[in-house]
Amino acid sequence: MTIPSPGPFTGRTLDGLGRDLRSGRTTAAELTALALDAIAGSELNAFVTVDAAGAAKAARRADEELAAGIDRGPLHGIPAGVKDLIMIAGLRVTMGSRHFAGHVADEDAACVALLRRAGAVVVGTTTTHEFAYGPTGDRSAGGPARNPWDPSRMTGGSSAGSGAAVAAGLVPLALGTDTGGSVRIPAALCGAAGFKPAYDAIPADGVFPLSRTLDHVGVLAATASCCRLSYEALTASGLSETVGEVRVGWLEPDSLFPTDPRVAEAARAAAGPVAGEARMAPEVLELFRETYLAIQSGETAAVHAGRLASAPGLFDPEVLDRLRVAAELPAWRYVRAMEARRELEEHAEALFGPYDVLATPTVPILAPPIGAREAELGGEPIQVRAALLAMTSPWNVLGRPALTVPAELVDGLPVGLQLVARPGGEAQLFAAARQCR
Amino acid sequence: MTIPSPGPFTGRTLDGLGRDLRSGRTTAAELTALALDAIAGSELNAFVTVDAAGAAKAARRADEELAAGIDRGPLHGIPAGVKDLIMIAGLRVTMGSRHFAGHVADEDAACVALLRRAGAVVVGTTTTHEFAYGPTGDRSAGGPARNPWDPSRMTGGSSAGSGAAVAAGLVPLALGTDTGGSVRIPAALCGAAGFKPAYDAIPADGVFPLSRTLDHVGVLAATASCCRLSYEALTASGLSETVGEVRVGWLEPDSLFPTDPRVAEAARAAAGPVAGEARMAPEVLELFRETYLAIQSGETAAVHAGRLASAPGLFDPEVLDRLRVAAELPAWRYVRAMEARRELEEHAEALFGPYDVLATPTVPILAPPIGAREAELGGEPIQVRAALLAMTSPWNVLGRPALTVPAELVDGLPVGLQLVARPGGEAQLFAAARQCR
Repeated sequence: MTIPSPGPFTGRTLDGLGRDLRSGRTTAAELTALALDAIAGSELNAFVTVDAAGAAKAARRADEELAAGIDRGPLHGIPAGVKDLIMIAGLRVTMGSRHFAGHVADEDAACVALLRRAGAVVVGTTTTHEFAYGPTGDRSAGGPARNPWDPSRMTGGSSAGSGAAVAAGLVPLALGTDTGGSVRIPAALCGAAGFKPAYDAIPADGVFPLSRTLDHVGVLAATASCCRLSYEALTASGLSETVGEVRVGWLEPDSLFPTDPRVAEAARAAAGPVAGEARMAPEVLELFRETYLAIQSGETAAVHAGRLASAPGLFDPEVLDRLRVAAELPAWRYVRAMEARRELEEHAEALFGPYDVLATPTVPILAPPIGAREAELGGEPIQVRAALLAMTSPWNVLGRPALTVPAELVDGLPVGLQLVARPGGEAQLFAAARQCR
Repeated sequence: MTIPSPGPFTGRTLDGLGRDLRSGRTTAAELTALALDAIAGSELNAFVTVDAAGAAKAARRADEELAAGIDRGPLHGIPAGVKDLIMIAGLRVTMGSRHFAGHVADEDAACVALLRRAGAVVVGTTTTHEFAYGPTGDRSAGGPARNPWDPSRMTGGSSAGSGAAVAAGLVPLALGTDTGGSVRIPAALCGAAGFKPAYDAIPADGVFPLSRTLDHVGVLAATASCCRLSYEALTASGLSETVGEVRVGWLEPDSLFPTDPRVAEAARAAAGPVAGEARMAPEVLELFRETYLAIQSGETAAVHAGRLASAPGLFDPEVLDRLRVAAELPAWRYVRAMEARRELEEHAEALFGPYDVLATPTVPILAPPIGAREAELGGEPIQVRAALLAMTSPWNVLGRPALTVPAELVDGLPVGLQLVARPGGEAQLFAAARQCR
């Protein structure tokens, strides 16, 4: 089953595009024009600001370089979207907020500079949940991004537009940020691959902060292999191809959050044969949740304390309510949370045990309708935000590399399989993705 | 003018004691017996637990080693007191609190292990303000330590007993901890020298925490030179003797806190000729205060959250009140404070400007009566706690090395001169102390 409205990059990989660029079957200018046209014709609200002139110029330069024998690698000439809270010099970057409606960035974020150095063509900014403060992706000053498989449903967030844009084939690559799952959740709910590298592997300088301790810059693309190529290109690193056998353990999703059995089954099938199973103990899960919430609340409230005092009315009402709650967190809970990370590291080691990689669904439910905050699962009510974050946020607390890859559709909606590795286990992580279904 | 009741180590330096030990004029056993007798006869409440048997045994071993030609350096055979929240294996360590009235430490703190490795003889634990949470030194489960110059007056704290013990000549050396001035304040008010090294220069493992970001382990001894010898012995480091000319700047004490003019004058006289003067801007001072308070409050409340919930009645009432206030601090203020340290580092660089060392009084007032929380200065009321911490706490926020040395007496009470250096400026700091009065 294919996506209802395929875009120019649907079914295309970075590898294939790169071959076409180098064989002369296409040009960066042509790919960029395809992207710009598709974005203009899309009703997904995936993009906020499109830089048609800048993109055309960058594409021409990419073509000239290739013609002159200058090859910047797998991202050379590839059109890319950039989440609307990552600074792009001279472009409007709004954080999805009325607070920054007219804000123009002074200089490129470090990751944008890396993207350009790798030869990619920045086409514009993609919709973010306001200040990235929400995993639903549907509260943004410019309105919600829409799920390409069903525009009445949320993309997930906060890198909502990046997820929609890649999944809909508007661009073959997008940058996102991931503080509790904000790359992986929209990738999973929209049917793309998404990679959150280890903490600080891609520098966060020039990214508007949500929670510096938890913020990660990541990539969204069609496949795990595309994510890998992008990661290697951005970090100028090369992951080993020969990693031997990778032992994948299935982390029982119900030990993290009540899970739609169809989602669990699809993810499990995608994981293929596994070496064994693991469960997270309830007290460890609770410590992960408390730690994540306290670190994020304290740091996010610190970022926005000035705006909360001076112009609260400019926030989206839901974001405002959440910020006000976050601002009440006592300092000693934050301090305890920062200290708890060491203990959680030990729990995670025990959980990984003999496995190189743990596999779970990325999100335990299918994409809910835009605006939904409660859902039902097996006759029981569940909180949508808690559900969306449940499988992904522990790996932000620990800074472990984590990847989501598309599994089968359920009810016409994408399901993501999440793979998580130890720091330094990136090669094994991508090897595990290759040995999946 | 000499101290009212001189002890066996009054007027003795580590250098002189070391010469006597090595020339056979005395033994570690004899020095230890002198210390134990003096402690037993003292009414200053400087010690909490005395380990006569352990000290005698350690002294015998020190003598045997010296006799066998094993020389551990300047602390070999020197009796030392250890603040009652630094762990000593097998000894009662109470944190000055009823919560730990019967607590026996499992193992030596890292600094105690270093002290023993350097050959010192641990004679017992010295009174601390309960959990080190107070610069007055007069709230401790075993009662306040008393100022050797006037037993109705406070020692200052929180290393209250270490200050009294060294100043009264009960021991030639004591360990303390310093989170906002807790080594320097009692040293200054009691008439000893005290050195707070750079952050983490002496490891804090095995020290009961007050605020890990601000806690420093330091030493108290008769003179700056004794502090230096102790520091070098504990850290197995050697500071350069040749540092060239050291430019000392006078940091106007009134730019930090209203200062008793007699105290300012005595400290200024002790500093001798200076290269120039500096003033702290009011907004920088305010940022230092807020930052110090927020970091300490958040971290201290985190340490005691369990006890606050389960057994609040075991705290001293004043300590309890302060902990309850600290527990209310919002997390975002703590996060902001942790971030503000970088900005304060820049302000401090501007303040140091051309100077290698800044000089101020250590404390802007004379030792107040035990229990006093308000005092009067020039007809205006001042808060005693704020006064005691005002000159010392900025250097904990920055982790800069700071030293207090005795200046002249005022009204029969000691005044301390504080010298502060850049990290790495320890040799200049001690050179500045030599060129003082």
